[in-house]
Amino acid sequence: MSKPVDAWLLPDGVADVLPVEAARLEALRRKLLDHFSSWGYALVFPPLMEYLDSLLTGSGSDLEGLTFKITDQLSGRLMGVRADMTPQVARLDAHCLPVDGPARYCYAGTLLQTRPTGLSASRCPVQIGAELYGHDGVESDIEIIRLMLDSLQLAGARDIHLDLGHVGIFRALAESAGLDADGESRLQDILARKSLPEWAEVLPRLVPETGAQAALEPLPTLCGEIAVLDRAARAWPDAPVAVARALADLHAVIAALRASHPQVTLYIDLGELRGYHYHTGLVFAAYVAGQRAEVAKGGRYDHVGEAFGRARPATGFSADLKQWLGFDATLPAARGILAPAGDAAALATAITELRAAGQRVVQQLPGAALDAAAAGCDRELVFEDDRWQARPLSSRS
Amino acid sequence: MSKPVDAWLLPDGVADVLPVEAARLEALRRKLLDHFSSWGYALVFPPLMEYLDSLLTGSGSDLEGLTFKITDQLSGRLMGVRADMTPQVARLDAHCLPVDGPARYCYAGTLLQTRPTGLSASRCPVQIGAELYGHDGVESDIEIIRLMLDSLQLAGARDIHLDLGHVGIFRALAESAGLDADGESRLQDILARKSLPEWAEVLPRLVPETGAQAALEPLPTLCGEIAVLDRAARAWPDAPVAVARALADLHAVIAALRASHPQVTLYIDLGELRGYHYHTGLVFAAYVAGQRAEVAKGGRYDHVGEAFGRARPATGFSADLKQWLGFDATLPAARGILAPAGDAAALATAITELRAAGQRVVQQLPGAALDAAAAGCDRELVFEDDRWQARPLSSRS
Repeated sequence: MSKPVDAWLLPDGVADVLPVEAARLEALRRKLLDHFSSWGYALVFPPLMEYLDSLLTGSGSDLEGLTFKITDQLSGRLMGVRADMTPQVARLDAHCLPVDGPARYCYAGTLLQTRPTGLSASRCPVQIGAELYGHDGVESDIEIIRLMLDSLQLAGARDIHLDLGHVGIFRALAESAGLDADGESRLQDILARKSLPEWAEVLPRLVPETGAQAALEPLPTLCGEIAVLDRAARAWPDAPVAVARALADLHAVIAALRASHPQVTLYIDLGELRGYHYHTGLVFAAYVAGQRAEVAKGGRYDHVGEAFGRARPATGFSADLKQWLGFDATLPAARGILAPAGDAAALATAITELRAAGQRVVQQLPGAALDAAAAGCDRELVFEDDRWQARPLSSRS
Repeated sequence: MSKPVDAWLLPDGVADVLPVEAARLEALRRKLLDHFSSWGYALVFPPLMEYLDSLLTGSGSDLEGLTFKITDQLSGRLMGVRADMTPQVARLDAHCLPVDGPARYCYAGTLLQTRPTGLSASRCPVQIGAELYGHDGVESDIEIIRLMLDSLQLAGARDIHLDLGHVGIFRALAESAGLDADGESRLQDILARKSLPEWAEVLPRLVPETGAQAALEPLPTLCGEIAVLDRAARAWPDAPVAVARALADLHAVIAALRASHPQVTLYIDLGELRGYHYHTGLVFAAYVAGQRAEVAKGGRYDHVGEAFGRARPATGFSADLKQWLGFDATLPAARGILAPAGDAAALATAITELRAAGQRVVQQLPGAALDAAAAGCDRELVFEDDRWQARPLSSRS
């Protein structure tokens, strides 16, 4: 309380959103939520805090380290401030809204994270996203990816690159190689870093059986343009059925996206294991020119609702709305009418009518004049020809 | 993680906002923020967490108990999750946006509170509010109260009662009675409870001097209709100048509100010390028929920015958006077009065009039929007369 000098300092990765940015953020939020709604995604607002158990359900340990823990004074139990809304929506689908067929949800809300993730260095992202529950065909993956790409374009993103992978491939190959959890985790770590020398050294030790070894061997290099899928088919002539199904899904997604989003560059990475702990199928991430970090990501995570008593197929995507503000730098024009101080009936009526008609009217206060620029106004309310009317500021000398 | 049975339970005072309510909440949020904007209030989004020092600045000890504390892993310092946005906006005005004249800000955001406040029992309110900095005349109080009343009406509130008080009266009388902090706090507590017997017993002991005692004596009973102000003027013929000024301000507010909001019932309470720790002048609270707790409140809190290095006059109001949802129980109509599954070009184009025109189109997924009611649709997309068109569902038998 006694620190006037630095009481205004904010923690690292924590920032105010000031008026111009706030107006842009609000406009983009509305545009995207309206877009999600036009696709049939129903808005939900899960709470900012929950018991830690439910917040971390099905999410793997990464999220635990990112989540601020707080104690519930009412129950004595440990709660968390959400660091991701996806598990919350899974809880909603499993318990609060148990419909039988496909269910579509979208959301927008602030997260808190103990440390910055990605390159934005923010610890208070505004997460937006959409989730599709209850359908396990590739058509729902395609719908979610299209919704994500359309949303990015709506936000002004250009030169979009989409990375596509499928965690089912590594999972099936690791299983048929008889790898234990430690071995699988070791290989997964090397794949994530795409360290080819390490892969060449470690793989033969962990998977001595030559057939299984040969199947896993090309995984880190199976990335690039769409021809990668043909190389993969040649590399795995006798692959487990799950691998063949994953490749067929990737083919279907690519054909669908080429038809609907020919301007988006597609990149295949069969060694990409983004969110391997909870993802179960197709995974994807979008990038735009000029930003090193991904701008949106998602994938299939069937059975995430299991811990809530209801396993359902699920696919979805999420992004940080604040990051998307960078796609379109157009600033909103300052529009408004500066009205004089006073409470006379005719003036009050004129102001009320203008506001009701959607105009922004800023009224002066006695003894504290505001100039039009500070008030963000381009017009003023003047009494002319026996009535109050709005006039461009430039019309007065 | 191993608790499938109760993993969906939420803590007391914490709730999901499910689709129908969420759509209403979002619509009301937009309506009110647009309304604030039409009055010239600029939207700001202060962060969800800050260093505890700044979060609690100028707010008194009540807020400290309501605030969840978390440790910043990056700095080792104590942070808090905001339990009130008002001190954050004061920080913005003092430090981030130092304009000279009047400045108007509005906000909407989730709070977390350690225990429920008011009667709603919620610990995750969505706070909305507006603050006017840089003007110390009664005109800014009037503007803020009018904005609050118009906002309530816009949200559908009927039978609004407005309680008006002025903490400057008790403050001035206590000061001229020479009361120390303990004595002032004791009397304040009795006033808050309106305990007349206790007042009659304690006042003479704490304020033996007959003139000062006589001035304080009627305070708990100076409440009721506007005639209270006349009784007060008669009770305090030689009152300190601050008291006379407070009464004049109340007269001005009442006259202004009678002109602009004749349908609002006004109630004066000169012993009302709501937020006495940080309020410095006029205080007010709005009630609606059928709800015991106040639905909005505010007042003047000059100098709140002092701890941030810049004392400015300030007045504002805030409310819980979720509470305001109760004013208008009208449910939005289910509108939407259910489209068949498939990816043929003509169907895809028809869906895209309908969505771009603002229609909500929910597409079926193969093998997982959704009925129109579950999809919230009143129409369906059918291929007729050689083209895809939306038809009312009732037109099919």
